[in-house]
Amino acid sequence: MRTVNAVAAPSATEPLIRTTIERRDVGPKDVLIDIAYSGVCHSDIHTVRGEWGEIQYPQVVGHEIVGTVSEIGSEVTKHKVGDRVGVGCMVNSCGECEYCVRGDEQYCSKGNIQTYGGVDPADGTITQGGYSQAVVVTEDFVLRVPESLDFEKVAPLLCAGITLYSPLHHWKAGPDTKVAIVGLGGLGHMGVKIAAALGAEVTVLSQTTSKKVDSLRFGAKAHYATKEPETFTELANSFDLIINTVSAKVDMGAYLGLLKVDGTLVNVGAPSEPLGVPAFALIPGRRSWAGSMIGGIRETQEMLDFCAEHGIHPETELIGADGINDAYERVLNSDVRYRFVIDAATFA
Amino acid sequence: MRTVNAVAAPSATEPLIRTTIERRDVGPKDVLIDIAYSGVCHSDIHTVRGEWGEIQYPQVVGHEIVGTVSEIGSEVTKHKVGDRVGVGCMVNSCGECEYCVRGDEQYCSKGNIQTYGGVDPADGTITQGGYSQAVVVTEDFVLRVPESLDFEKVAPLLCAGITLYSPLHHWKAGPDTKVAIVGLGGLGHMGVKIAAALGAEVTVLSQTTSKKVDSLRFGAKAHYATKEPETFTELANSFDLIINTVSAKVDMGAYLGLLKVDGTLVNVGAPSEPLGVPAFALIPGRRSWAGSMIGGIRETQEMLDFCAEHGIHPETELIGADGINDAYERVLNSDVRYRFVIDAATFA
Repeated sequence: MRTVNAVAAPSATEPLIRTTIERRDVGPKDVLIDIAYSGVCHSDIHTVRGEWGEIQYPQVVGHEIVGTVSEIGSEVTKHKVGDRVGVGCMVNSCGECEYCVRGDEQYCSKGNIQTYGGVDPADGTITQGGYSQAVVVTEDFVLRVPESLDFEKVAPLLCAGITLYSPLHHWKAGPDTKVAIVGLGGLGHMGVKIAAALGAEVTVLSQTTSKKVDSLRFGAKAHYATKEPETFTELANSFDLIINTVSAKVDMGAYLGLLKVDGTLVNVGAPSEPLGVPAFALIPGRRSWAGSMIGGIRETQEMLDFCAEHGIHPETELIGADGINDAYERVLNSDVRYRFVIDAATFA
Repeated sequence: MRTVNAVAAPSATEPLIRTTIERRDVGPKDVLIDIAYSGVCHSDIHTVRGEWGEIQYPQVVGHEIVGTVSEIGSEVTKHKVGDRVGVGCMVNSCGECEYCVRGDEQYCSKGNIQTYGGVDPADGTITQGGYSQAVVVTEDFVLRVPESLDFEKVAPLLCAGITLYSPLHHWKAGPDTKVAIVGLGGLGHMGVKIAAALGAEVTVLSQTTSKKVDSLRFGAKAHYATKEPETFTELANSFDLIINTVSAKVDMGAYLGLLKVDGTLVNVGAPSEPLGVPAFALIPGRRSWAGSMIGGIRETQEMLDFCAEHGIHPETELIGADGINDAYERVLNSDVRYRFVIDAATFA
């Protein structure tokens, strides 16, 4: 066991505070990572505030983690001391079910072990996330971070990046496809960059045109305001694939009407209430409405390598440990372009 | 022009009555079909009662038509006098859009011309359906009915059959897949027979177990009652493909929970109101909710040939022209096992 500095939520209603947590000893297959940077995801806020269910406090969140290997277990073969590595939303899974075997650990039939708030099979404790100085993770859930990626910016790829890469890849975004990204936030801006790099023609659907310059800079061909009703007539039957990153309730019938025949709209944002969807929005064009959740480990590595190859980085704003509570308020006000990253040196 | 006997709806609220209608002269690419049998589809009832939008009266409905070719135009090459043929839900389409070109005429970007209630591009009249003695249709929308199929029973394949075959085929039902059919009516019973013949393991999800004997006779491995809540726990995460034939509002979240990871639920039944669907029912298993509408002409021919090869027939009850209004009441009361077919000789 080792004690490391961290920032934790003491309850659902109080600000996050500095504290210390214990990390388990490095087991035969474990990797100890000295955390360098940790991204701030909207999910962190939902979780610490109990909006996605009751949790145990204190809880350290953060599932966009990059750092350097500082110790390895006796049986570790995939990583060595000094390697630049990353950890995303999962730190383990059963490894035996049909989904784990095929590399879809995120859909493990027994449930994957989340990076924070999960029950660690190694010792039965509640997993604690990346807002800390170090973490111990079994080697199979540790990713290699290519040297060409800017270490200070790369952390959000581990959640926001893979959350968009996986559906774009699964539903075959590419040179002959027209893709729309709904919402230009932490998730959406990664979607634009990755879809454009995959060769797709990308359109951003955002509430207003205020971020149009950014959309085009990230690789989109067009940017439309969804508060203008004519957007939905002008773009009717246009897209092969729409990725909806918005977790607020939207008019699903209107968005489904933007799909071509056989098109798919994929939700990666998850409104807490059911959405009203007319079956007639799906039937006359054999359209699909689907969901997607992060990505598998192999696919996450593929995404990191793809981003390295194409020079794709998240747009980030670096903060210190004492800036997290302010950052949360700014995330809730959509006042971040486009992802906060905590400099883990400030946990010292 | 020729005058033929028919049964038409004089208004949205009156019973259907005997009348006569005009059929256009046989053009160069047209086929004149002496109708032998015509199926009764729930859509017919929705349409004549104005439940799917205003229509012009009188209107002859019926889009499950089989008969014999009695005259052909000078340029017809696909059919000859005396052939047994069928006509389904469409009688034309633009023929030029990307969907028509690839054989998905049902999704024609200009809208397919429906067998009844559409505007006929040949003469600008409103198309009149199969509850009549004869019909003139352009040859490309006329199907061959294989000799081995029982002519008296085969008509419902032209709508109910293809409506189920198309999604089963598109979403690859086969030997390694588990398929559920929701609702055992005119559509559902064809789904069970076709999915079983495709090699899938078929489960019927019906309100009660009253039709269990039929389900098993049609080829299902199992039949569960959806009014029993334990059905949804017992069958959670079980199916690769669910075809929902029910046009009433159901708890979509519960049905989506029956899908395996990457599974798809396809609505072919269309409730008029939007369905409340939680995104969380889709996201954690990369599940899809899709729609499907009849099938293309090439695919419909493939379906007829498949049914001939596997000896698949709809379960039918033969009625005469004067029995249609009673049949409508019985359809609305779910009191038909499983499709009414009108003997067109009784239009004389």
